[in-house]
Amino acid sequence: MGRVTERRRVIRVRGGAAGVRPDTLVAEEPLEIRLNGKPLAITMRTPGDDFALAVGFLVSEGVLASAEDVRAVTYCEGATEDGSNTYNVVNVQLAPGVPLPDITLERNVYTTSSCGLCGKASLDAVRTATRFPLRSAAEDPVRIPARLLAELPDRLRAAQKVFESTGGLHAAGLFSPEGRLLDVREDVGRHNAVDKIVGRALQAGHLPLAGAVLLVSGRASFELAQKAVMAGVPVLAAVSAPSSLAVDLALDSGLTLIGFLRGPDMNIYAGEDRIVL
Amino acid sequence: MGRVTERRRVIRVRGGAAGVRPDTLVAEEPLEIRLNGKPLAITMRTPGDDFALAVGFLVSEGVLASAEDVRAVTYCEGATEDGSNTYNVVNVQLAPGVPLPDITLERNVYTTSSCGLCGKASLDAVRTATRFPLRSAAEDPVRIPARLLAELPDRLRAAQKVFESTGGLHAAGLFSPEGRLLDVREDVGRHNAVDKIVGRALQAGHLPLAGAVLLVSGRASFELAQKAVMAGVPVLAAVSAPSSLAVDLALDSGLTLIGFLRGPDMNIYAGEDRIVL
Repeated sequence: MGRVTERRRVIRVRGGAAGVRPDTLVAEEPLEIRLNGKPLAITMRTPGDDFALAVGFLVSEGVLASAEDVRAVTYCEGATEDGSNTYNVVNVQLAPGVPLPDITLERNVYTTSSCGLCGKASLDAVRTATRFPLRSAAEDPVRIPARLLAELPDRLRAAQKVFESTGGLHAAGLFSPEGRLLDVREDVGRHNAVDKIVGRALQAGHLPLAGAVLLVSGRASFELAQKAVMAGVPVLAAVSAPSSLAVDLALDSGLTLIGFLRGPDMNIYAGEDRIVL
Repeated sequence: MGRVTERRRVIRVRGGAAGVRPDTLVAEEPLEIRLNGKPLAITMRTPGDDFALAVGFLVSEGVLASAEDVRAVTYCEGATEDGSNTYNVVNVQLAPGVPLPDITLERNVYTTSSCGLCGKASLDAVRTATRFPLRSAAEDPVRIPARLLAELPDRLRAAQKVFESTGGLHAAGLFSPEGRLLDVREDVGRHNAVDKIVGRALQAGHLPLAGAVLLVSGRASFELAQKAVMAGVPVLAAVSAPSSLAVDLALDSGLTLIGFLRGPDMNIYAGEDRIVL
């Protein structure tokens, strides 16, 4: 297995003086995800939870919806010529009867040759692809007090083990409606951190993540909102800003989207009925 | 053209009180990059500088090295069924004689079926792919005073127009060895911001970017270090942490890599001979 952190020599300049010392860095390695033996995507990720990352990615792509959809997940032996590197290529073998996706080899492709490519098409694609359509916020019994949301960033930060030593990781945390931390993952890529959360939930039989709050340490992009919707997460909160298309997807799919969550202050961009002020 | 920012309604919670107001968000839209008419990659980007983004991406992939390698860059008309959306698909037509890359359809793929996938292979691939090999730091006449580096983050921040209004953008800035800001680009994706910088340099006939300092607002991943190396940039500085593989690539390719650049304090991970303390 690869390691989550690695040590490198660094010249540290502080107050005009320089000194050489070892430094702890977040590890980054490529991971190739194969589906039924065929290469599907490559992501630069922090090693660890690779099987969860692979199956979580496939939930986001609409391929998997439950642990029963997976026949086996394995590292590919002999991925290098000398057979030594077996931990950067993961193959997901689908259970019999699970349809292979109509995905081209490009990452995050929800287009057909006739449809073209625009934000609206991306929203439509998520709506048709999700296996766990969200109720509208008004119809959903899930209610989260704003003052509980306010506490989650500190809880996430307290649970981040690797960030403390490297300062170089994105984190994603999954919380119950009562604010209990259900899972936390850290990764050099924030989409990977979310894929790992979703993948572990799939493996544990917890999809859809109805009632859960997903908190991400950075910004809320379309891709992260898409991953929340595809896993049935009703509330996505981000410490920083969302993009326009993330907000559009949230409005379109019934997702509650919070941005700039900093202590008691926050911006609610969509699905405000789930938040109790 | 798409817009760099968009307005959405937001419920703003401050000090326990909630109010509805309009909010300015960074725009995010998909862009499909085609090469000689064939889809190569899709990236979620902030609209603007799309041609620069496309050709800059192709510099990073080792396809382009000068403006003469490009015959034409065009938006694809009729990308939607009604012909209306023509600004999210860009085609780059290579000049006669420029070889098509041996890239699979996956993004950032520097592997062959026989090679497998590991950090070391990624480093080797950049070394063989770059058209502008860097001198070693010791042999390069470029010398940057550390106290000049210290001023660059403030200069970058002052030049960021969209961040002020949205809080949601990554930025990349290109500086001369004297600290003069040569270019700045903002994007929802930090790799896009760098591709736009590199693409504009290619269009202006400025590649390789010998002597330049590239500053990025966030972390330094392998991908960003790769883009610097492929464009011949000798110094990459980041406000936050680098990854292990970014440091390895810098050491391997002669790139000077600075992390945690915060005022006069910084960490030098590779190529310290270019920095005058």
